[in-house]
Amino acid sequence: MERRDFWREVVALSGSVTPFILKRVAVFGLYGALVWWVATYTHVRTGLGVAPYEIIGAILALVLVLRTNSGYDRWYEGRKLWGGIVNQSRNLGVVGIAYGPDDAAWRNRFLRWTAVFPHLARHTLRGETDFSDIDDLMTPEEIEQLERADHAPLYCSLQVAQMLQSARKSEAMDGFAFMRADDQRAQLIDHIGACERILATPLAKVMSIKVRHFIFLYLAMLPLAIVDKSGMLTPFLTMLVAFPLLSLDQIGIELENPFSVRRLSHLPLGDIGDKIQRNVMALEHADDGSSEEDAAD
Amino acid sequence: MERRDFWREVVALSGSVTPFILKRVAVFGLYGALVWWVATYTHVRTGLGVAPYEIIGAILALVLVLRTNSGYDRWYEGRKLWGGIVNQSRNLGVVGIAYGPDDAAWRNRFLRWTAVFPHLARHTLRGETDFSDIDDLMTPEEIEQLERADHAPLYCSLQVAQMLQSARKSEAMDGFAFMRADDQRAQLIDHIGACERILATPLAKVMSIKVRHFIFLYLAMLPLAIVDKSGMLTPFLTMLVAFPLLSLDQIGIELENPFSVRRLSHLPLGDIGDKIQRNVMALEHADDGSSEEDAAD
Amino acid sequence: MERRDFWREVVALSGSVTPFILKRVAVFGLYGALVWWVATYTHVRTGLGVAPYEIIGAILALVLVLRTNSGYDRWYEGRKLWGGIVNQSRNLGVVGIAYGPDDAAWRNRFLRWTAVFPHLARHTLRGETDFSDIDDLMTPEEIEQLERADHAPLYCSLQVAQMLQSARKSEAMDGFAFMRADDQRAQLIDHIGACERILATPLAKVMSIKVRHFIFLYLAMLPLAIVDKSGMLTPFLTMLVAFPLLSLDQIGIELENPFSVRRLSHLPLGDIGDKIQRNVMALEHADDGSSEEDAAD
Amino acid sequence: MERRDFWREVVALSGSVTPFILKRVAVFGLYGALVWWVATYTHVRTGLGVAPYEIIGAILALVLVLRTNSGYDRWYEGRKLWGGIVNQSRNLGVVGIAYGPDDAAWRNRFLRWTAVFPHLARHTLRGETDFSDIDDLMTPEEIEQLERADHAPLYCSLQVAQMLQSARKSEAMDGFAFMRADDQRAQLIDHIGACERILATPLAKVMSIKVRHFIFLYLAMLPLAIVDKSGMLTPFLTMLVAFPLLSLDQIGIELENPFSVRRLSHLPLGDIGDKIQRNVMALEHADDGSSEEDAAD
Amino acid sequence: MERRDFWREVVALSGSVTPFILKRVAVFGLYGALVWWVATYTHVRTGLGVAPYEIIGAILALVLVLRTNSGYDRWYEGRKLWGGIVNQSRNLGVVGIAYGPDDAAWRNRFLRWTAVFPHLARHTLRGETDFSDIDDLMTPEEIEQLERADHAPLYCSLQVAQMLQSARKSEAMDGFAFMRADDQRAQLIDHIGACERILATPLAKVMSIKVRHFIFLYLAMLPLAIVDKSGMLTPFLTMLVAFPLLSLDQIGIELENPFSVRRLSHLPLGDIGDKIQRNVMALEHADDGSSEEDAAD
Repeated sequence: MERRDFWREVVALSGSVTPFILKRVAVFGLYGALVWWVATYTHVRTGLGVAPYEIIGAILALVLVLRTNSGYDRWYEGRKLWGGIVNQSRNLGVVGIAYGPDDAAWRNRFLRWTAVFPHLARHTLRGETDFSDIDDLMTPEEIEQLERADHAPLYCSLQVAQMLQSARKSEAMDGFAFMRADDQRAQLIDHIGACERILATPLAKVMSIKVRHFIFLYLAMLPLAIVDKSGMLTPFLTMLVAFPLLSLDQIGIELENPFSVRRLSHLPLGDIGDKIQRNVMALEHADDGSSEEDAAD
Repeated sequence: MERRDFWREVVALSGSVTPFILKRVAVFGLYGALVWWVATYTHVRTGLGVAPYEIIGAILALVLVLRTNSGYDRWYEGRKLWGGIVNQSRNLGVVGIAYGPDDAAWRNRFLRWTAVFPHLARHTLRGETDFSDIDDLMTPEEIEQLERADHAPLYCSLQVAQMLQSARKSEAMDGFAFMRADDQRAQLIDHIGACERILATPLAKVMSIKVRHFIFLYLAMLPLAIVDKSGMLTPFLTMLVAFPLLSLDQIGIELENPFSVRRLSHLPLGDIGDKIQRNVMALEHADDGSSEEDAAD
Repeated sequence: MERRDFWREVVALSGSVTPFILKRVAVFGLYGALVWWVATYTHVRTGLGVAPYEIIGAILALVLVLRTNSGYDRWYEGRKLWGGIVNQSRNLGVVGIAYGPDDAAWRNRFLRWTAVFPHLARHTLRGETDFSDIDDLMTPEEIEQLERADHAPLYCSLQVAQMLQSARKSEAMDGFAFMRADDQRAQLIDHIGACERILATPLAKVMSIKVRHFIFLYLAMLPLAIVDKSGMLTPFLTMLVAFPLLSLDQIGIELENPFSVRRLSHLPLGDIGDKIQRNVMALEHADDGSSEEDAAD
Repeated sequence: MERRDFWREVVALSGSVTPFILKRVAVFGLYGALVWWVATYTHVRTGLGVAPYEIIGAILALVLVLRTNSGYDRWYEGRKLWGGIVNQSRNLGVVGIAYGPDDAAWRNRFLRWTAVFPHLARHTLRGETDFSDIDDLMTPEEIEQLERADHAPLYCSLQVAQMLQSARKSEAMDGFAFMRADDQRAQLIDHIGACERILATPLAKVMSIKVRHFIFLYLAMLPLAIVDKSGMLTPFLTMLVAFPLLSLDQIGIELENPFSVRRLSHLPLGDIGDKIQRNVMALEHADDGSSEEDAAD
Repeated sequence: MERRDFWREVVALSGSVTPFILKRVAVFGLYGALVWWVATYTHVRTGLGVAPYEIIGAILALVLVLRTNSGYDRWYEGRKLWGGIVNQSRNLGVVGIAYGPDDAAWRNRFLRWTAVFPHLARHTLRGETDFSDIDDLMTPEEIEQLERADHAPLYCSLQVAQMLQSARKSEAMDGFAFMRADDQRAQLIDHIGACERILATPLAKVMSIKVRHFIFLYLAMLPLAIVDKSGMLTPFLTMLVAFPLLSLDQIGIELENPFSVRRLSHLPLGDIGDKIQRNVMALEHADDGSSEEDAAD
């Protein structure tokens, strides 16, 4: 996260919503030109001053910022949830290695099911059905079971729970440690559920529709209000006002679904999943050698 | 959640509050016309400038946005709570299947009572008394008991608790697993209780009444302030200002009760309940076969 | 929570702060008339324009909305805490019935002490000393003990804790269930403590005093600034501006103590307590008959 | 918390920041007078209109309110944390009395160490080194140990933990009850730690400095912008604008450290501590007599 | 946290973003001068009034404040997380000393691994690879292991977990106490994970880019709008408006990464780590002597 260069960002288009709204801005510009042309050739004056626009403008500004902010909150909540997936996966790994049965096969299997959870969560959130990116973690049989599952992350969670139960039943895992592990497992279900909630719940339609009604109404009236004074500059000024309004509206929409790769500034779920996999699988061998002996001194 | 088309939403009426407020906007338009007519035929000038309106306008805008925002927060809190119901139901199912007694009848019964909770919660929040939508989950006797219960979700929670207790007493369930299960069960009670709180607590009346006093006062004064300058356009401008004010007020009211099917943008409680039922009941057979044997290797 | 009628609320006075502030608004109106009278008969012009008022007006609007918002947050936090009291009471009841000793006397006593907690909390928050409203739950001896207690809800909590301890000691209650019950009991102490905090902590005085200084200063300067242009309308305009400012200030104060019956829009603690009592006491017999036998199949 | 009298607060100075900022307001008034004097005798006109000030004014207002709000949040968070100290102390007391060993000496000692925690927390937050106010709770030897401790509340927490451990080891306390008690103990450490964080973390310097830069710049330019029109009133208007700006800035600073007795509206930590001590120590004898026998019926 | 001197902060540059933005402000000043020069020598009038700027200005102000606020929230969240690291480290220390094995070597080792965690967290967040600052806590062998670890704080957490497990296995630590300790250990992983999230997630690019587009557009149009009226003062006024806009933008960026020493107002992670180390290591000997005996009376 470098201190980003001001001048470079000023001209940057990549990652900006500008390309998405150019056409809309142009439409309002053309409309402004039409208003000016009609006003000029008919010599009709609208007599509309800008005064009554102020209250509408203030409300529009507030509502629009609210809308963008709500999109941003959703985006950031999604990011926090994936931060939670990182934390709970790590903790599940630590608990499995430190408190689990002293059985290499169990440990390897436990870490693999822990590390695969974020990948499955990503699949679910992005509607991806290709499981080939987890073939370094799962056996073909396990992948087949996952493909058949009603809800892959839930199936994964059940696997983890059953491994904990088998360890508990064979007394290879202490009850207290078992409880700590299941607490972490359950939190993973909470995180994926919350992500699905974000995915399924855009801004209340009653509100998002009204925001666009307001924007349209405001921009449709604007040239009528300014054409008397601004003349030839009417289309230009209309576009100047339309640009930030339409940008903010679009930003709110881009941020509303933080998981889809088709949205700008979507979250790097793939990178996060790879990081978790690396951290968790590294625990398998972090345990070798000296430390436990020291502890047992 | 597709990137929604700007131009289609601009003209959309379905899901919009516009039909609800058209009459009110028209009333203020007629009033504006009356003011203009009186001013024209009596040649009286009000002498009221717009200046003192600015502070009132600013306060009105802020209060109104606050009110809409508070309605939205309530709506989103309701959605989060139902997200929690999804999570806790899933977890309860996983815990029951993975850690519960190895008894198909108990498991089936446990999953059924888990899966029925969201349906009962919906009944309570919507005041629905028709239990026929749960007859695939509950036996007629169970439905009869639910109908007699003082509070159906609470009764359901008691059933789950008693099943956990019976499993615990017969030593078929580990104490630690029992505790994890009861934790999830208790959270479901928290979620339904919080939903009932939202239902029972609209915006403080002292505030919602005042918002409408302010709107009325503002719109009643507006034509007097602008008629000197705007003349014939007075009714039109009055309606232009009335539209966003009354829209926001109405949006706040629509969002205040996110559960009722009679409100716009109400939450899809039926769909969420069906999804939970599908996820939870799928756990009954997710457990078959290979996985536990692998774990026990 | 019906969709409330716009026109009825516009004229409603019941539940509104208007009666409380009428005198203050009138005082500023009289002052405005005085300024106009002096200006008219002395022909002195103040020369004060409205321009420098804008920055003060903006700050005043923001601070005032902040103040109202802070009062509202307090009110809503109080409501949430009582929602928590509902949840924890219900859970405590479920846990007591499902996991407690199989002893009718213990169960009845446990539910009664659970159901009485919200009543005692209400007494404490409202400074009520009449215990006659709980004589259907408590014996005269128990009421006498409560009257002698330093802090009645804390005493009640101790009773519940001691019943849990006696059940635990006699092995009639599982340790894990005991822990779940005590968790709910402790949360009730958290809720009543948080309510007491709200009661004891109005908005920081340094802030509430300053809000009123600002309002006064603004309204005292306003007639001087507008009298040159507005003439005879000065007192009327002053009152028009004073009304929303003083309303919001008063709303903030009404909401600050959400428990007192003397405040507008206070929370219906009595109704909530009765609902809890009904829900909790209904658990005593919800348990009869078939269900447990089924579970034990 | 009485409904406070509007007119009395309007003239109140006690608890107000006004005395702190009078000198600063006067300095800007003098500067305004100077600008007016120079403008009058040199007949130079600045030609600066107020227009470009609007955007700066809007930003200044928003930033200033943000700053005050951030100070207020800090103040209220401090209050919430002390509410938590009340709750956890009470719960620790209840748990100790209800579930602890049946040993009067242990109980008295446990309640004393519980009741002394808030006093020690206050000492730490206020930098007080006089332990004489706790000599009714602690023996001289205990006070001496506290004086030697690196961090007195942490030492107190360790004492509580060791008492729990000794009760646990001698089997006089159930493991589940022990766990509940330690949970409450640990939360007290969280609360005092969070208070220390508030104490150690004023508003980010990069932000608080800039707020003051903006205020200064705005007030330094103001007389230049208004002197052409306002003439002789320039110093008066400058002070009128300076007063709310400097007030809000100062309020933010007063609220930033809610613990110090040298700040206005500081929290009544002494009263809270005394209330906790009274509540907790009252538990020692709340337990006498009838109740437990009833429970054991 | 002294009440800071107003006049000293007004002129302070250290800790201010002013040096970072001077060049940008100057660029806009030069551009303003160019506009004025062209306007003067060509006698062209832009005819652009300031009116249409108001809505853009309002949106810009809101968006900019939102951006700064979001940076500040991130900064404060980072501070809160480190407050949590303080709390959990202290609690882990108390639990280890009070409930851990009565074995001086184990205790010393446990406290050392607890106290080193914040240092390792700092290394990770700042990308520091020099472990020499922890050579008073760790042996050379332990440092070597840390250097080889995939993620040092996670490795540290695993060490703590393994010590807990070894204590638990040898029955030197009660299961309930073990659970309390692991709860604190797991929270440390949550805290460091949340810090890494803050580090890895600047403001959504779609938003930060657009903020800078808006600023640039606004400042590029400003001289055109004011040059007709302000003439020679155009460059000066442009810079006056550019200064707060660019300051806020830069403040948002400085606060975005609260951990890096290269940012202004970064958090004092070193001091916090040293404080934790002092508090935790002091526990080793706080335990000596009288207290436990008293407790065992």
